[in-house]
Amino acid sequence: MIRFAVVGHLASTDPGFSLNDMPGGAGRMDILCRCVNTSLFLSHGLRRDVECYLVLNGGPSGPKTVLFSGEQVRYLSPDERSAGALIKKALGVPAGLAFRESTPGVFVRKGGLLELVKEHRFAILDERGNDIRSAPVPDDSFLLSDHMDLTADEQALLEGAPRYSVGPVTIHADHAITVLLNQRDREAAGL
Amino acid sequence: MIRFAVVGHLASTDPGFSLNDMPGGAGRMDILCRCVNTSLFLSHGLRRDVECYLVLNGGPSGPKTVLFSGEQVRYLSPDERSAGALIKKALGVPAGLAFRESTPGVFVRKGGLLELVKEHRFAILDERGNDIRSAPVPDDSFLLSDHMDLTADEQALLEGAPRYSVGPVTIHADHAITVLLNQRDREAAGL
Repeated sequence: MIRFAVVGHLASTDPGFSLNDMPGGAGRMDILCRCVNTSLFLSHGLRRDVECYLVLNGGPSGPKTVLFSGEQVRYLSPDERSAGALIKKALGVPAGLAFRESTPGVFVRKGGLLELVKEHRFAILDERGNDIRSAPVPDDSFLLSDHMDLTADEQALLEGAPRYSVGPVTIHADHAITVLLNQRDREAAGL
Repeated sequence: MIRFAVVGHLASTDPGFSLNDMPGGAGRMDILCRCVNTSLFLSHGLRRDVECYLVLNGGPSGPKTVLFSGEQVRYLSPDERSAGALIKKALGVPAGLAFRESTPGVFVRKGGLLELVKEHRFAILDERGNDIRSAPVPDDSFLLSDHMDLTADEQALLEGAPRYSVGPVTIHADHAITVLLNQRDREAAGL
C-alpha cells in the first residue's frame, strides 16, 4: 500500500462549491483533483494499492479529510471535474470523527492533518529532501502540499519526518506523485 | 527546445465544445488539456523551452493543430478548463495552412500529423521503446497518443521513428510527459 496525503490549505469544505471554478472559489481544489488522478490512474485501470487523502482546510467547516481508495473507488474518471464531483458528494455527507463512505471507495471525516499523522507516519515530498533515486525509499506514506508551503504548525506536526526530493526543479504536487510512482514501478519491476 | 505532440483522435474542432464535458462531447479533450499542463508547468513558473502541439482529429473541421508555446503563452493556468478555454478560442479563429496566433503564445492551423512530421522528427513515447534511463535520449521531439493507439496510417507516417519507454507500466500520456521531463531535468542538472 502506498499512501499520499495532500494538504489543501484553502480547499473548500462547502459541498456547494462550483465545478466551474475549482481554482478560484473552491480554493485550488483543481490541484487536489489532479493529485487524485496521478495517484490512482494507470493507462487502462487503477492503482489498486494506492490511497489518496485530501486534507481540506478551507471554510466553512474545515478541516475535513476525503479519502479516495484505489482498491474500492468507483465512478471516478481521470478528468478534474470527475474527482471534483465526488469530493462535492463527500462534503454533502454528515461527517463524524470516523471515515464514512459517501460514494463507493470515497470516504469523508472531520479533522485534518492532526488526526492523520496519528495514524500514519508520513514522509514529506519536497525539494530539500534526499533524492528518491539515491537509495530505495523505505516509506510508504507521503505528504505533499498544494500551492502553499506547509505552515509552521503543520511542520511541527511532522517534526522528524523523512524528506524526499523527486528531482532538481520544484514541480507541482501532482507531478511529484507521478515521478514517485514511476520510481516505485521501476523498483517493483527490478529496473 | 523540447517538443511534445499529442494526437487527439476524437478531439473536437468545434469551438463550441463544452468546457463542462471535455471527456465526452469534446472527444477526450481533457487528456490534451492535462498534456498542456504537464508539458509547461513548473511549481512557480512555466517551462519556457517547451512547445506542446495538440493534433485535433475530431469533427467538424479536423484535423487542426493547436500549439502552446511555453516561451510566449499567457493567460494559461494549470487547471483543465484554462487550457480548454484557450483551445476553444484557437478553434474560433479562421485557420489557414500557417500557424496563426489566437491568444498570446497559442497558435492554430489546419492540418495534423501529416504536416507536423514534415517539420520535426518525432520520437514516439510508448511502452515498447527503449528505457529513457538506459542512455541519454538524443531526441527533442516526442509524440504521444491519447486514450487510443496510433492508427496504421499514423504509424506509417512515423515509420522508423525511435521509440522510448518511460517505465514498466503503461501510463497516461500526461504522466509520461512528466516522467520524461523529470529525466531531462536530472540530466540538465548533472544528476
